[in-house]
Amino acid sequence: MPLSAFVPNPHPLDPLHVGEIKTATATILRHLGISREDVRFKVIDLYEPSKDETLKYLAQSGPAPDRRARAYFQRLKTPVLSIAIVNITQGVVERSYDAPDSQGPVDWVEYDRIHKACLSHPAILAEVAKLKLPPNSRIENDPWSFGTDNHEERRRLFQCYMYLALNDDPEANHYSIPLPLAPIFDAHTLELVELQRLPTGATDELDEETQPWDPTSAVEYSADLLGPDAFRKDLKPLNVIQPQGPSFSIQGRHVQWQKWSFQLGWNMREGPVLNDVRYDGRSLFYRVSMSEMTVPYGDPRSPYHRKQAFDLGDSGFGLTSNSLNLGCDCLGHIAYFNGIRVTSAGEPVIMPNVVCMHEVDDGIGWKHTNWRNGKSSVVRDRQLIVQCTATVANYEYILAFVLDQAANLHVDVRATGIVSTMPIKKGVQVPWGTVVAPGVLAVNHQHLFCLRINPALDGRNNTIVYDDCVPVRNEPQLDPFGCAFRVKQTQITKPGGYDLDLTQNRTFKILNESHINSIADKPVGYKLHPVPSQMLMMGPETFNLRRGVFSTKPIWVTEYRDHELWASGEFTNQSREDTGLAEWAVRKDNVRDKDVVLWHTFGVTHVTRTEDFPVMPAEKMTVSLKPVNFFDLSPSNDVPRSNQKDNKSTLHQNDTSCCSARPSRI
Amino acid sequence: MPLSAFVPNPHPLDPLHVGEIKTATATILRHLGISREDVRFKVIDLYEPSKDETLKYLAQSGPAPDRRARAYFQRLKTPVLSIAIVNITQGVVERSYDAPDSQGPVDWVEYDRIHKACLSHPAILAEVAKLKLPPNSRIENDPWSFGTDNHEERRRLFQCYMYLALNDDPEANHYSIPLPLAPIFDAHTLELVELQRLPTGATDELDEETQPWDPTSAVEYSADLLGPDAFRKDLKPLNVIQPQGPSFSIQGRHVQWQKWSFQLGWNMREGPVLNDVRYDGRSLFYRVSMSEMTVPYGDPRSPYHRKQAFDLGDSGFGLTSNSLNLGCDCLGHIAYFNGIRVTSAGEPVIMPNVVCMHEVDDGIGWKHTNWRNGKSSVVRDRQLIVQCTATVANYEYILAFVLDQAANLHVDVRATGIVSTMPIKKGVQVPWGTVVAPGVLAVNHQHLFCLRINPALDGRNNTIVYDDCVPVRNEPQLDPFGCAFRVKQTQITKPGGYDLDLTQNRTFKILNESHINSIADKPVGYKLHPVPSQMLMMGPETFNLRRGVFSTKPIWVTEYRDHELWASGEFTNQSREDTGLAEWAVRKDNVRDKDVVLWHTFGVTHVTRTEDFPVMPAEKMTVSLKPVNFFDLSPSNDVPRSNQKDNKSTLHQNDTSCCSARPSRI
Repeated sequence: MPLSAFVPNPHPLDPLHVGEIKTATATILRHLGISREDVRFKVIDLYEPSKDETLKYLAQSGPAPDRRARAYFQRLKTPVLSIAIVNITQGVVERSYDAPDSQGPVDWVEYDRIHKACLSHPAILAEVAKLKLPPNSRIENDPWSFGTDNHEERRRLFQCYMYLALNDDPEANHYSIPLPLAPIFDAHTLELVELQRLPTGATDELDEETQPWDPTSAVEYSADLLGPDAFRKDLKPLNVIQPQGPSFSIQGRHVQWQKWSFQLGWNMREGPVLNDVRYDGRSLFYRVSMSEMTVPYGDPRSPYHRKQAFDLGDSGFGLTSNSLNLGCDCLGHIAYFNGIRVTSAGEPVIMPNVVCMHEVDDGIGWKHTNWRNGKSSVVRDRQLIVQCTATVANYEYILAFVLDQAANLHVDVRATGIVSTMPIKKGVQVPWGTVVAPGVLAVNHQHLFCLRINPALDGRNNTIVYDDCVPVRNEPQLDPFGCAFRVKQTQITKPGGYDLDLTQNRTFKILNESHINSIADKPVGYKLHPVPSQMLMMGPETFNLRRGVFSTKPIWVTEYRDHELWASGEFTNQSREDTGLAEWAVRKDNVRDKDVVLWHTFGVTHVTRTEDFPVMPAEKMTVSLKPVNFFDLSPSNDVPRSNQKDNKSTLHQNDTSCCSARPSRI
Repeated sequence: MPLSAFVPNPHPLDPLHVGEIKTATATILRHLGISREDVRFKVIDLYEPSKDETLKYLAQSGPAPDRRARAYFQRLKTPVLSIAIVNITQGVVERSYDAPDSQGPVDWVEYDRIHKACLSHPAILAEVAKLKLPPNSRIENDPWSFGTDNHEERRRLFQCYMYLALNDDPEANHYSIPLPLAPIFDAHTLELVELQRLPTGATDELDEETQPWDPTSAVEYSADLLGPDAFRKDLKPLNVIQPQGPSFSIQGRHVQWQKWSFQLGWNMREGPVLNDVRYDGRSLFYRVSMSEMTVPYGDPRSPYHRKQAFDLGDSGFGLTSNSLNLGCDCLGHIAYFNGIRVTSAGEPVIMPNVVCMHEVDDGIGWKHTNWRNGKSSVVRDRQLIVQCTATVANYEYILAFVLDQAANLHVDVRATGIVSTMPIKKGVQVPWGTVVAPGVLAVNHQHLFCLRINPALDGRNNTIVYDDCVPVRNEPQLDPFGCAFRVKQTQITKPGGYDLDLTQNRTFKILNESHINSIADKPVGYKLHPVPSQMLMMGPETFNLRRGVFSTKPIWVTEYRDHELWASGEFTNQSREDTGLAEWAVRKDNVRDKDVVLWHTFGVTHVTRTEDFPVMPAEKMTVSLKPVNFFDLSPSNDVPRSNQKDNKSTLHQNDTSCCSARPSRI
C-alpha cells in the first residue's frame, strides 16, 4: 500500500486540537502541583513526535505516536520561563524544566500589560507633558523586543517605542509621528527600568530636555481619514470565478490538489507548515517551513544599536497571524484554516481563518507553436496558494507556499506594512536611513529569513550537492573553439554553511543517489532556486551576528535530528548566542546519503524610500524548489490545454475613433 | 500644457501603417530604379525620428518629424544585403547602401526556400535513405543560423537540423527524433554546401556511414496524439470576469491605465516596445525594449560549436510573434494589437493580435493591520500586462511588460517551448547535456538577454549611479556596537560595462540630479532590480564572446545616440564582431547628467533536465524598475481598498466528514 494512501486523522503532525490543549493544561497543573491562578501560559503547541515513529506509523508498520505538547509558561511569582513536555496520550508530564538564562517569546497578555503600563506610568506622562501635545491627541506605544548589548542582562525587558495619533480613527497612522521616547520596562515587575529618550539629531547626543513637539501632520492611509476624493476612480472590479468549484479537496488538514498532497501543519512560531509533501504519490519533502527571520537595523545611535527582532522566535508568525477576510486577502474560491492559541489560563482559543488557500492563474505555464502550420498548444500555470499574514507590531509578512502543475514548490514572501519609524529633527539628515515624512526617519535595515527544507525525495536518505557550470578552457583537443562548459558536481558530506556563486551558476540540489532516472541516467533530484541576497553586514563579534549565525551564509546543511527546527535556536528573545545552526552545523556528522536538512537564508537589505510610506508596497521574494530529473518528462504535459470554452475571456472592442484609413492598432 | 496631454496620432514612434509601407516600397523601387521582380524585401520598419525632433514636437515646439522607413532588401541577382532609409513624408530615399560584409536577418520566404530545398535535395534524400525509416514517417527540418567559426566566410549559410515525425499530426513532436544530419545550404544559391552529419557519440568523430535509425517512439505533447485519457481530470475552470470592463483605455496605440500612459511601439526585431512612459503625467522612460538575446551552446563537438543564435538580430521577436488567441494566452478582458510585416514584394501584411494586453490580480499589493483593534487595510496588486510570444523554430519566448499601481515597471520573460535536441546513441552520455528521451540529447546552453532602458526621469538628463551597502566597522567612536552600515553611492561618469555585487547589495539607480525630493532631500530616481545571472562562459577570444560582448557584463551604460538600439549591433547573423555595445561603451563620453541608456544583461544557464521535455515548463525571469524617492509617498496609497463587494470571492465549505468533537480544520 503506498504511503500516500494512508492519511490518519489526526495526522501525527497535525496541530493540537481543543481537547488536547485542555488535557495538556490540566496535566501540567496537576502533575506540577500548580494552581491555575499562579501561572501564566504563553504557548502550548504540538511537540512533534520523533520522525522514526511517525514514518513507521505512516507506513503502517508501527503504532500511532503519542500526542505531545510543548508548553511555555511562567509561575507568576518568578520571572523565570518554565517549559513542560506533556504526553497527552498518556496524561503525563514527561519533562519539565526552567530556563533562567533564556527569555521566552512574547505573549499577548504580557504585551498588553507592558503597553498599558507605559501609557499610564506617571514618570512617562510627566515626560510626555513636556512635549506639549495638542489637546485631542492620543499617545500610543509598541513594546519592542529589547535586543541585546550586555552579556550580563537577565531581566526580561521591553522598550516601548512611542507615537502620537492626532485623531481617533482606528487606523490613525501614529507611526507617522514617532515621539522621542522609548521607555524600558521590566516585563515581570512592570517597573519602569529607564525612561529612555531617543536621539533626534545626527549623533546619539540627546537634547538636554525633552523638547516640545514640532507640529506636523501625519501621512495617513486610513480610507476614512483620506476621504473618498483621495482615491483613484478608474479601477474596475476583477472577479475570479470557479463555476465548477475549486480543484482542491480537503480532509481534515490533508490537502490534495493536482497530484500534490500535503498535511497542513500550523504552530504559533512558524505559522503554516507543509508536512509530508508528495507528488503523484511520490514522497518529496517531510517538512517545509519558514524557520526564522531577523531584522537588524543599521543605525549606531544608542539605543538603536539594540534594534534586532527575531520575528519568529521573539513573537511568532502563528501568534501574530491575521484572521483573514473573504474578498480582501485572496480572490476566487477560498478555503480557510483555523489556528489555535491558549489564554494565560491555558484555555484553547480558536484563531479563525489564519490560513487561506485558493487557486490562481499565473499566466502561461508552457507554450509551443509549430511554425509550419501555426498550430499552438498553451497550458496555463494554475497554482495553489497557502497563505498567511503575520502582523508584527508595525510590519506585515505575507508568507505563501505556492504549488504548481510543473511540480514546482515556491515559497513566496511579501514584506509590507509600515516601516519602523524614528523621530528626527526637521532638516537633519543621517546616513542611516531616509526621511520619509517630515520628522520621520525610516532607518535602513535587513530582513534575513531562513527557510528550512527537510527533503524526502523517494525516501528518507538524500544528499545535498552543488553544481557549478565551469568553462572547459585550455583543452584545445577537446574544445578547439572554446565554447564548452561542464557541470561540476560537489557532494556535501559535512554540515556547515555554504556560499552561492552566481559567477558559476552554482545550483544546490537535493538528490536521492539511490534512485536513478533511467532516461537521464542521473539521480532523481530537486534544485533550489534561491533568492541571492546580501548576508548580515554586522561583524563576527557583534551580538547581531552571534545571535543569528544563520544570517551569515545563504545555504546551510545539517543532519536531521528531531526538534531541530529553528535556525537561531529555541529562545531568541534577548538571546546572546545562537543555539541553532551555530551548534548543529559544526557537528562532525556525515550528511551524504542521510536524512539531511537544507536551510536557505535570504532577504533584503532595505534602504528605505519615501515610497515605502505610509504603507510599504509589498516587496516580493520567491524561493523555488524544482524537479531535476525527478520525473521522466514534463509533469505538466498532462494538463488540459488552455481553451476559450473553459476560460471565457472577453474581447476588448477597439475604443478609438481613429481614422479608418489605417487599422487603428497596427 | 503638460507633455502628457499631447498625444498625436500617429505618434512619431508608432509603427509604420499600411499606407506608409506601400509608399516606402514604391519610393525604393522608383528611386533606385529596381523592378519589383528583381528584389526580395526582408524588412520594412519604422526608422525612428531623431529624439531631438521628437521631443520638440511632443512639447509642441517643433514640427512633426518626417516619417521614415528602414528597409532591408536583396536584389535577386546578388547575395548582398541592401539597406535603404526612406523619407516617407517627402517620398525620397535618403540613404541607400549595401552591406557585403554583413548578413541581414532571416525572412520567411528565404526560410521556406531553404526548408524546402533541404527536404527535396537528392543527395539529402539519398542520405536519408540510409536511415531506413519506417514507410509512413515524415522528414522535417529547421533551418538554423549558421553561427561563426571562420573570419573569411562571406556566404549566407544555414544549417538544417533534421528530424523525424512518425505521424501526420500537426503537432507531431519531431524534435523528439533528431536525425544525425544537418546539411548546410547557401541561402542565395540554394546549393547544398555540405552534407553535414552530426556526431552521436562521445566525441565528434562520425560513424563511417550514416547508420540505420534505431527505432524509438516520440515523446508527444499533441493533445490529439495523447488522447483524452492522458490528461488529468481534476482541473476546474477558472474565469476572470470584469463586469464593468477593463481599467485601461486605448487611443490608437496610446494606452492609459491607472495613472500610467505609454505609446505602444512594435517592430520586427524587438516586438513590443514601450515609448514615452509616464506616471501621473511625469516622464519616466523615453523607450524600454528587449534589445537582444543570444543562446550559445556548451557542446564542443563540431558542428555544435557554431550553435549560437541571436534571436532578435537573426530573426526578430516581432517577425516570429504568434497571432494570439482569445482564451489561450490570457484570462479576462483582452485587448489585442496587430503587427505588420512585408511580403517579399514589399506589400504590407497585417499580423493579427501579436500583442495582447490585459489586467491581472497579483495578490496582495500592500496590507497593514492595527494590532490594537484588528482593523486591516488591504490593497490588491492589480497589474497591466502587455505581452507577446515569439516562436523561434523550436523555442518560445514570452515577453511581457508589466505595470503595477505602485509605479513599478516589470519586464517579465518566460522561456518555454521545446529545447533544441540533438541525436545521441542510446547508452552514450556526454558531459554537455542531458538525455531527455531515448536517443535525444538536450545540450546545456545559456540564454542571455539584454534589456535596453532609455530613462527620462522628470526630463532628458539623468545619471546612473550604484549604491553599495557597506558596514562601517572599525570606527568605534561612531559605531561602538558594530551594527552600522552606510550607503555608498558611486556616480557613473563613463560609458562601460559594470558588475553587480550581491555581497554589497549593489543597486543601480537612475537619478535626476536636478530634481530633489523635498521630503527625503535626495534626487528623484528609479532603481533596477536585476536578475543576477551567470554571464557568458566563453572566453575573450571566442567568436561567441566577440559577437555578443553585451553578454559579458550585467550592466552597461552608454550615452544616448539616435539609432543605437541593439546590444550586439545591427547585423548579428553570422557576425564576427559585435558592433553594438562593444563600440558604444568604449567611447570617451561623459554620461553623468546626460541622456543616458542603461542596459541590463541577464538570463539563465540552462542545464537541461528530463522535465524540460517535450515542452519545457516556463522558466520565468523578472527585471523590475521601482521608484526611489521619486514620489513623496507610496503611489498605491490611493488605490481603493480590497473589499468583498467588488471582489465577490466565494467561501469553501468544509468538505470533510470529520468528527464533530473538534473543529475539522483546526
